[in-house]
Amino acid sequence: MKVHDWHTGPYPARVRIALAEKNLQSRVRFVSVDLWKGEHKQPGFLALNYSGTLPVLELEDGSCIAECTAITQYLDALDGTPTLTGTTPREQGFIHMMNKRAEIELLDAVSVYFHHGTPGLGPDVELYQNAEWGLRQRDKAVRGMRYFDTVLHQQPFVAVDRFSMADIAVIGGLIFAELVQLPIPADCAALRAWWADMQQRPSVRDRVAMSAPARAPEPVAATR
Amino acid sequence: MKVHDWHTGPYPARVRIALAEKNLQSRVRFVSVDLWKGEHKQPGFLALNYSGTLPVLELEDGSCIAECTAITQYLDALDGTPTLTGTTPREQGFIHMMNKRAEIELLDAVSVYFHHGTPGLGPDVELYQNAEWGLRQRDKAVRGMRYFDTVLHQQPFVAVDRFSMADIAVIGGLIFAELVQLPIPADCAALRAWWADMQQRPSVRDRVAMSAPARAPEPVAATR
Repeated sequence: MKVHDWHTGPYPARVRIALAEKNLQSRVRFVSVDLWKGEHKQPGFLALNYSGTLPVLELEDGSCIAECTAITQYLDALDGTPTLTGTTPREQGFIHMMNKRAEIELLDAVSVYFHHGTPGLGPDVELYQNAEWGLRQRDKAVRGMRYFDTVLHQQPFVAVDRFSMADIAVIGGLIFAELVQLPIPADCAALRAWWADMQQRPSVRDRVAMSAPARAPEPVAATR
Repeated sequence: MKVHDWHTGPYPARVRIALAEKNLQSRVRFVSVDLWKGEHKQPGFLALNYSGTLPVLELEDGSCIAECTAITQYLDALDGTPTLTGTTPREQGFIHMMNKRAEIELLDAVSVYFHHGTPGLGPDVELYQNAEWGLRQRDKAVRGMRYFDTVLHQQPFVAVDRFSMADIAVIGGLIFAELVQLPIPADCAALRAWWADMQQRPSVRDRVAMSAPARAPEPVAATR
């Protein structure tokens, strides 16, 4: 399978984290779509994903699954033992709720701030900006951080009693927040501690290296 | 279980359609939350759903699942035979992708138009509006209709070869579009035909009646 990807993109990071959690890295190869050049808004890419967003998972038969939640659901079901999206109805419900809430209240809000309240990907890509809306979404994201701080003050993970897709969505939000220099408020001790923990998690720690283009073999220094 | 609901709300309609498709109506009772009075923005309701949106499914133990996708996932899994969210990884992936795409490109866009580009729920509820953003989203929704017209020109349902959660999301978008008098473009023949079909479907046709408050018994006209 192919993952249409950009190595520093917060949304693509969600899928790479899911791949690592499921130990599926070897099943995919990464295709770089340069966000800074607007390659995700070109007709060739839009044919893969109408919404013009990364990541996209391209299956062996060429059909494409876009949207992080959908890709994660697919990957998690592949081996018949879902670990990220829940096994009981209750787990599935709570994971999907908190996953969506992390998008609405944090990750998507930071994204809108980036694309509308800052120069974003630059004037050649950001053809329309609404700065007032962008700044509102920045403030919403900070409120979202405070909400997730409250959640994580009461429980070790975002949705259920173990790491799930919903944690990955909050991680995506905090990755994006760092990129736009929107810090977690100093008094959000639970969220800050959780984020420090999550950054030690191999799937999160190694997320960028996973999709970095393979290096050419180093020249052998001394050949016998 | 309780469904926190508003009978004409397009998002709550998605859950009622899912309940009818799963034949679970008798398992729930509906609690009216008056959107026009802003009851969904009051502290009591925000304690159930941080995002302040309908619908919310309240389980027997009082815990709450918000977000239509999460509620549908829960309801669909309850009887062990999912019919709306897919059984294979591929079905699950495609249904979640198209469900999300229907939200982004149609339903959520119409919602933002309503709340920002029109008087929405009125000045007491709409405390901030960004008209320019609202009108952009209206135009996005019309493009979304054209996209789904293309999809439905090629296949009978939105995501897979049968009715699914993704169809319900598009239906939610078209319900909302009717409320804000945003018609399907005349040349979108496939979408118009599909929508006419869907409105004949009992779950869709009877969606408002399902949550209407039970009438008091009619007085008996002639008692012997």
